[in-house]
Amino acid sequence: MDYYQHFRVSPGSKLNLDKFDATCKDLHDDRKAAEEETLKLRERIRELQYQLYAERKRSVLICLQGRDAAGKDGTIRHVFRAMNPQGCRVYSFKVPSKIEAEHDYLWRHHRVTPGLGHVAIFNRSHYEEVLVVRVHNLVPKDVWKKRFDEINQFEKMLANNGTHILKFYLHIDPEEQLERFKKRLDSPAKQWKISDADYSERIYWDDYTKAYEDALTKCSTDHAPWFTIPSNRKWFRNYVVAKIMVSALESLNMSYPETSVDLAEIRRLYHEEKQKEDDS
Amino acid sequence: MDYYQHFRVSPGSKLNLDKFDATCKDLHDDRKAAEEETLKLRERIRELQYQLYAERKRSVLICLQGRDAAGKDGTIRHVFRAMNPQGCRVYSFKVPSKIEAEHDYLWRHHRVTPGLGHVAIFNRSHYEEVLVVRVHNLVPKDVWKKRFDEINQFEKMLANNGTHILKFYLHIDPEEQLERFKKRLDSPAKQWKISDADYSERIYWDDYTKAYEDALTKCSTDHAPWFTIPSNRKWFRNYVVAKIMVSALESLNMSYPETSVDLAEIRRLYHEEKQKEDDS
Repeated sequence: MDYYQHFRVSPGSKLNLDKFDATCKDLHDDRKAAEEETLKLRERIRELQYQLYAERKRSVLICLQGRDAAGKDGTIRHVFRAMNPQGCRVYSFKVPSKIEAEHDYLWRHHRVTPGLGHVAIFNRSHYEEVLVVRVHNLVPKDVWKKRFDEINQFEKMLANNGTHILKFYLHIDPEEQLERFKKRLDSPAKQWKISDADYSERIYWDDYTKAYEDALTKCSTDHAPWFTIPSNRKWFRNYVVAKIMVSALESLNMSYPETSVDLAEIRRLYHEEKQKEDDS
Repeated sequence: MDYYQHFRVSPGSKLNLDKFDATCKDLHDDRKAAEEETLKLRERIRELQYQLYAERKRSVLICLQGRDAAGKDGTIRHVFRAMNPQGCRVYSFKVPSKIEAEHDYLWRHHRVTPGLGHVAIFNRSHYEEVLVVRVHNLVPKDVWKKRFDEINQFEKMLANNGTHILKFYLHIDPEEQLERFKKRLDSPAKQWKISDADYSERIYWDDYTKAYEDALTKCSTDHAPWFTIPSNRKWFRNYVVAKIMVSALESLNMSYPETSVDLAEIRRLYHEEKQKEDDS
């Protein structure tokens, strides 16, 4: 099954998240097989990232979005930790700092877009500017409405300049979210993650749904597609994200760069040095 | 064996790198056992990094130094990729950019020191300012001589403000370096890493030795120790670095932070929400 195509939000399509199946039991129900496959996919991601790094011709930007407890941190821990930290940086965007708030809303994201050969992962992203900002009326409607176009243009410019963009929306349903909050309550290693906002945001569930539907349909483009990931089951979420990552990275047709040095000359030097060593 | 103490450069001690055993066959010669142990140590590093991240009280700065082909990249790939990229960033310092060169030599390093809860890995570091800079006379002697004190003061200030510093010098001997250059020549996936400088720097071997001896002895302090790592055998290098990392992180006595929220109130909310769900 081509998960890349299946879960991609087609540009200009409609999307009804309330009807989107966050579990997809009929699509896959063999956890053990999926977990084994995910390990292999991670190895492949590693190889492909190494080529990206060696090639130094393109960069990759990954945006992770989702409600509280949807699994953004978990996806990084289980899928993206396949990557060598030498070529991969994660940026978590929280409430803007004073300096950040004194700039346009794309400024702080643009500063940390990936350089050639590198991967950047945005844990929450510039999309919060049409999500939390919209739901809580942090700016007037006529301001955030312009942002869909502005974001598309920003991403188009990045793509034109060698950045390959992939955006994942991790979809869970309200029952699953509640279960996960419960688990945090019961685990000493997870209690520190609980915030008062977890529950207070739940009354805005439908407002967020509407905001996500707009963001995903208005900003899924050929150069920067959105993927809706069924995330009720963590192992399936990891599997789907890993499969899409491999498809995307393989489509780049990367290769190791030609060396810029004169290999014959270097070989001659090697033998000269070796001779010296052997003589001494 | 306490590798942390064994390979630590004692403050104020003498060091003769030409006599330092880069292999240490007598210390450990069971590759399989060491590799298995290293996997376990990596898991432990992962757990400890997660606590550091959760705690958000301290940060960790790791400096990796070594000659070409000493294994800086390999150490990151094999040991430090245990870390979740969400809380760990690698910074590779190459020839300074124009803007960087217009500032003091510590500026570009200070900008990227780790924040609370985070780990930063410097792949080459501010120590190049008393290594390559000294060997190639890029600044006069009276300038670089002042840097040992300046670096110690800089690191002391970082330590006073919650940054735990560990510095690894990966030691190989000239024969091993030559062998590694040879392997790069023969591997299509490694040829791109070859630079003309690899061989041309070899004539400065003894100058670098002297420069490293000074840097390591003058700047190994209680708050920012240097470790000389025998690195001829990659598996042993990984094992020693992983062991030292675990010792260092365990000595921080970290714990998960107390939650700032009212857990009883959150539990009440959970049951209220659950009731609503069950009723509907």
